[in-house]
Amino acid sequence: MKKVGILGGGQLGRMLLQSAANYPVETYILESDPDCPAAKLCHHFQIGNIRSREDVLAFGRQVDVLTIEIEQVNLEALEQLEQEGIEVIPSPSVLRIIQNKIRQKEFYVANGIPTAPFVVTQNQTELTQHLSLLPAVHKLGVGGYDGRGVVVLNSEKDLHKAFAEPSVLEKKIDIHQEIAVIVAVDQQGVLTCYPAVEMIFNSNLNLLDYQLCPASISTEIEVNAAALARQVVGAFGSPGLFAVEMFVDQLGEVWINEIAPRVHNSGHHTIEAHYSSQFDMVWRILLGFPLGNPDQILPSAMINLVGADEQSGEALYEGLAEILAMPQAFVHIYGKRVTKPGRKMGHITLLHNNLEALRLDAERVKRMIQVNASK
Amino acid sequence: MKKVGILGGGQLGRMLLQSAANYPVETYILESDPDCPAAKLCHHFQIGNIRSREDVLAFGRQVDVLTIEIEQVNLEALEQLEQEGIEVIPSPSVLRIIQNKIRQKEFYVANGIPTAPFVVTQNQTELTQHLSLLPAVHKLGVGGYDGRGVVVLNSEKDLHKAFAEPSVLEKKIDIHQEIAVIVAVDQQGVLTCYPAVEMIFNSNLNLLDYQLCPASISTEIEVNAAALARQVVGAFGSPGLFAVEMFVDQLGEVWINEIAPRVHNSGHHTIEAHYSSQFDMVWRILLGFPLGNPDQILPSAMINLVGADEQSGEALYEGLAEILAMPQAFVHIYGKRVTKPGRKMGHITLLHNNLEALRLDAERVKRMIQVNASK
Repeated sequence: MKKVGILGGGQLGRMLLQSAANYPVETYILESDPDCPAAKLCHHFQIGNIRSREDVLAFGRQVDVLTIEIEQVNLEALEQLEQEGIEVIPSPSVLRIIQNKIRQKEFYVANGIPTAPFVVTQNQTELTQHLSLLPAVHKLGVGGYDGRGVVVLNSEKDLHKAFAEPSVLEKKIDIHQEIAVIVAVDQQGVLTCYPAVEMIFNSNLNLLDYQLCPASISTEIEVNAAALARQVVGAFGSPGLFAVEMFVDQLGEVWINEIAPRVHNSGHHTIEAHYSSQFDMVWRILLGFPLGNPDQILPSAMINLVGADEQSGEALYEGLAEILAMPQAFVHIYGKRVTKPGRKMGHITLLHNNLEALRLDAERVKRMIQVNASK
Repeated sequence: MKKVGILGGGQLGRMLLQSAANYPVETYILESDPDCPAAKLCHHFQIGNIRSREDVLAFGRQVDVLTIEIEQVNLEALEQLEQEGIEVIPSPSVLRIIQNKIRQKEFYVANGIPTAPFVVTQNQTELTQHLSLLPAVHKLGVGGYDGRGVVVLNSEKDLHKAFAEPSVLEKKIDIHQEIAVIVAVDQQGVLTCYPAVEMIFNSNLNLLDYQLCPASISTEIEVNAAALARQVVGAFGSPGLFAVEMFVDQLGEVWINEIAPRVHNSGHHTIEAHYSSQFDMVWRILLGFPLGNPDQILPSAMINLVGADEQSGEALYEGLAEILAMPQAFVHIYGKRVTKPGRKMGHITLLHNNLEALRLDAERVKRMIQVNASK
């Protein structure tokens, strides 16, 4: 059996491992937290720091194929391992671009990919030269994750919120919709993509609130979005699974927002709603099997279950039984003992033939369940 | 989090654990083989003998709820644990009936459940008094499993094959179809059941060859089978998940064949083809959540992947890539290193709206893949 290592042991690792149990594969996880969601579902769990060169090198040398469930990993070690003949998927060259939002934007420009106009800023002072770009989004080049490292600068008086480190100042697009397309590329370069999903964000937490698949977009926008996603992922020239987040503006134009070179929150619905889930697809790529079928079985809504405000401590899932009584709901609890405000604790997928019913049920589910801390 | 223990760590345990990762639960497995399919997917794996009173007692005392993935477990220990206040699901009283085919038949008779006419035999000599029952099936009272402990006695000259130990001699039903209905009962006694599946057996190995859901039966037979399954499971008076195997004779009458008080081969298709799978349903019962929705999402065929004849050794899945290229196939490999003739190594589920297409694809899949031993 092939030995496959994953850097990171969060919920994405957990769901990858649930899916791995369908394949002949021996699994390894590297993660610093022994209570992480993926710790008890792998053949070999190793405590270590995914940002440490030594830890990643030692971990990677035991396996045949190495992948990630989070981008913030030690890149030098991955490059070294790739040179030593370990298959690293996605290629470290992709991570080098993705890990830095400045390089990411420059990559889009170099490849003719439509993305919001931007400038690179090295410090806060420089921002005063680019007031014409406002309202804009300031994104830290390195280190942002899940809404951290991003601020909105609406006018000059917001400039004190800006980052002092190298960042991207990106003109705010007049967003009509946010969508995402997941693209899979096998080791021969064969490429397939999932139907677009439409994301509705919680503006307070800057986290996905719920999403729908198929997205409520015209065929023309669907085709453009898929073509754009394929184009940008093709430009990376690496096998792997890529979540391409895009904006649709008020004129119906599609713009690349960001790319994650891994399984992604925007693909969780594929577990039940599509033939091959994003997690299944990754194992096919890593093990050299044919790509799976990304087609939809039924339309779906996916709702993130995040820790409630002002609740920190041992997690209690209030309303869980009521959700489980819904005939078309699928619940995924990530096994994290401790909840914190905004922490991703699980998700719920709903299947229904009717998109309007899905929207209503998604709104209902959000009000029915809350992750609190036990007193 | 509730602590749940499972006696046995085969493929049924493995698939239970894949599903457990959707729930807030801490999992324990007791099994003698450290390389068993379930060993690496649980929180706590303990080496021990599920037939040993001491091992089961020590294991069970650590958990809140105890269940099984195989019937051949130490019953006295389970009865003791139940007295000590551990929840044992299904109740040991069910296992006392099921573990012994003689008691099973007597239970059906006592509860007015239609089952093939039979006598109990204590030794081979007694059989000569019951020649009028031939052709018949001789079933060992205790110890049969997966086709072992069952012989067909067509005529007097087969009597030398009969068992010398206490057994059931059961008149052979003129079988038109074999079907199964899975019934779930929660801790409050609420009961639900899945649509009937139709099973096609491999007569050489006496193992399930492939199955279809829905079964090709009239509405009347479907209703009768569901009523019968509900009746017999209700008579047990225990929470749990029960696979009720039935015969449909040439006249359309439905007869109980056997019952397994656990997840079962005949329910594997529910993972992809139904809203709540049989594995998901078990966690709902064990954790005290509402029962899931047994409805079908799409019609399905399920094909067992068994070790090829005359092949023993490290398993090689020849043709696996071809199956994975089929757009509506879902593959489950159980992670057993060693294959043996007839050993259950995995299964494949096909989804399709058209039952005839499913039959053809199931036949095709069987010819496409083979589990051989590496030379």
